[in-house]
Amino acid sequence: MDSEVFTIHTGGRRGVYDITREVAGFTSGRGDGLVSVFVPHATAGVAIFETGAGSDGDVMDTVDALFPRDGRWRHRHGSHGHGADHVLPAFIAPGITVPVLGGVPALGTWQSIVLVDPNQDNPERKVRLSWIQG
Amino acid sequence: MDSEVFTIHTGGRRGVYDITREVAGFTSGRGDGLVSVFVPHATAGVAIFETGAGSDGDVMDTVDALFPRDGRWRHRHGSHGHGADHVLPAFIAPGITVPVLGGVPALGTWQSIVLVDPNQDNPERKVRLSWIQG
Amino acid sequence: MDSEVFTIHTGGRRGVYDITREVAGFTSGRGDGLVSVFVPHATAGVAIFETGAGSDGDVMDTVDALFPRDGRWRHRHGSHGHGADHVLPAFIAPGITVPVLGGVPALGTWQSIVLVDPNQDNPERKVRLSWIQG
Repeated sequence: MDSEVFTIHTGGRRGVYDITREVAGFTSGRGDGLVSVFVPHATAGVAIFETGAGSDGDVMDTVDALFPRDGRWRHRHGSHGHGADHVLPAFIAPGITVPVLGGVPALGTWQSIVLVDPNQDNPERKVRLSWIQG
Repeated sequence: MDSEVFTIHTGGRRGVYDITREVAGFTSGRGDGLVSVFVPHATAGVAIFETGAGSDGDVMDTVDALFPRDGRWRHRHGSHGHGADHVLPAFIAPGITVPVLGGVPALGTWQSIVLVDPNQDNPERKVRLSWIQG
Repeated sequence: MDSEVFTIHTGGRRGVYDITREVAGFTSGRGDGLVSVFVPHATAGVAIFETGAGSDGDVMDTVDALFPRDGRWRHRHGSHGHGADHVLPAFIAPGITVPVLGGVPALGTWQSIVLVDPNQDNPERKVRLSWIQG
């Protein structure tokens, strides 16, 4: 299986990272199939939504509202409230598969593939892309 | 890859749309494999739960509780509160893959595949079904 | 398609069940591909996060905070508040696919594959594992 990993340098900035271009670069020339986008991290998720029109911040605000960075968490490693980051992937899964046609991810006009990373303790993230021929 | 798109006419009604029959029609006769169900929209999700016993409305109520349709959102296009609809797919992803055996999705007795559509601004939705042979 | 089902005996205990070992046992010796992990139940989800450091309880607390087990639900079968369990799979999906390399799921150091089961009315759960060659 063609599978490769690339690195995102977040510098520990919490936020949404658009990886559509990296995914499309990986699928380019491959014909039809499925691409698996998977982050091997316990404090990040992969999602698909519209970026650049405000939803990046809206999603992060929602993450903070649903998983508050306070003292409630049993998981107590890392910075204050970091237990919240460990709950996120239960709700924003670390992987998604996307259909690909003629080497192009079959996304809608307004869809981008993103890494959602609430974790300020980790300056670097890996993303694995894997190809399943259709 | 066998891949096709069908259209759901929601008429702009916010709600849950059962697409199990359409998915099963697509997989019928294909043997074993995975079916990818993917909506190319930035304000809808695909989910699997029990329909017809009240959970359709319960899920929509939960969507409105977790992503309130009010003025809090940075994303301000469309009708009032529409920014909430753009946050939904981060939590209810626009795609899922389902195992298929003998041409039949290997769903449990009470599982239905649905489109979750909170968006009253969009009267029509596309769903892409793609087949990966097992 | 190689596909098999195993059973988890929860005894009706609500909680998080680590199934990483079962998934790795299934993929062992298979080379490269995708493994689909799918639960054919309408009141459980599959997730990937760090277990054993407190997040199991944190995720269950979050489930109870977001989907309160009270009288608000239209779905009224089963024990009091059980309608909440039927909403969970819309947000923690019943399936995920994981890339596999050399027969080993390509998980990060801190990732475990789990069943999230809020349902005290059901003492036994099935999990289906299916193999797609890469």
